[in-house]
Amino acid sequence: MQPGVSSSRLDRTLVALADPTRRAILERLSRGEARVTELAEPFDLSLNSVSKHIRMLERAQLVRRRIRGREHLLSYNPEPVDEAALWIETQRSLWTRRLCALDQLLREEDGPRPRTRKGRR
Amino acid sequence: MQPGVSSSRLDRTLVALADPTRRAILERLSRGEARVTELAEPFDLSLNSVSKHIRMLERAQLVRRRIRGREHLLSYNPEPVDEAALWIETQRSLWTRRLCALDQLLREEDGPRPRTRKGRR
Repeated sequence: MQPGVSSSRLDRTLVALADPTRRAILERLSRGEARVTELAEPFDLSLNSVSKHIRMLERAQLVRRRIRGREHLLSYNPEPVDEAALWIETQRSLWTRRLCALDQLLREEDGPRPRTRKGRR
Repeated sequence: MQPGVSSSRLDRTLVALADPTRRAILERLSRGEARVTELAEPFDLSLNSVSKHIRMLERAQLVRRRIRGREHLLSYNPEPVDEAALWIETQRSLWTRRLCALDQLLREEDGPRPRTRKGRR
């Protein structure tokens, strides 16, 4: 694990991001606060269905809710995405480096064969 | 969407990565090919349970299977992680930039001092 990111927090972030509707909601909220009804409009989804997606985003702390009188205003919180991006980039780089090293090693082990045979592989 | 990554492929990658056991399996495979039994050993999980995780990783194309006689050898395929890392980093940067711009705009609008400059926006 990347230090500073709990495994369950990372799980929640990745699952929350693994859906095109939830990504579109975050995309919209990165442009500014919105009410649930405003979020539901472009998706042709029921309010209930959008609310479920929003609750999942709130559990992952990707979305914050501010209550002003009767209005519930939702906004995007970038921290979990920052953490997930850092984790995935670190792992990507580490795992790929290992694969390359392994590939190199196997090639060396296969290595210094006399290359006298021609025309055959 | 990031060009070149289908939404459903990204969904599968993120869901597959959103589990500590599956991440540990990928971590192990980045060190070299392994059999299912070898993968199951350190996790104190049933073969059946590990097989389910592996099938999910295969569906996301994070794991490849090579059959040699009776042996099934599993290996790590880095491409989906590369794509997911690129997607998440692009979005992270875009969404955060927008939030910062929005924050700046709101601060300007709230501005405590009456503006002396002409031509207000």
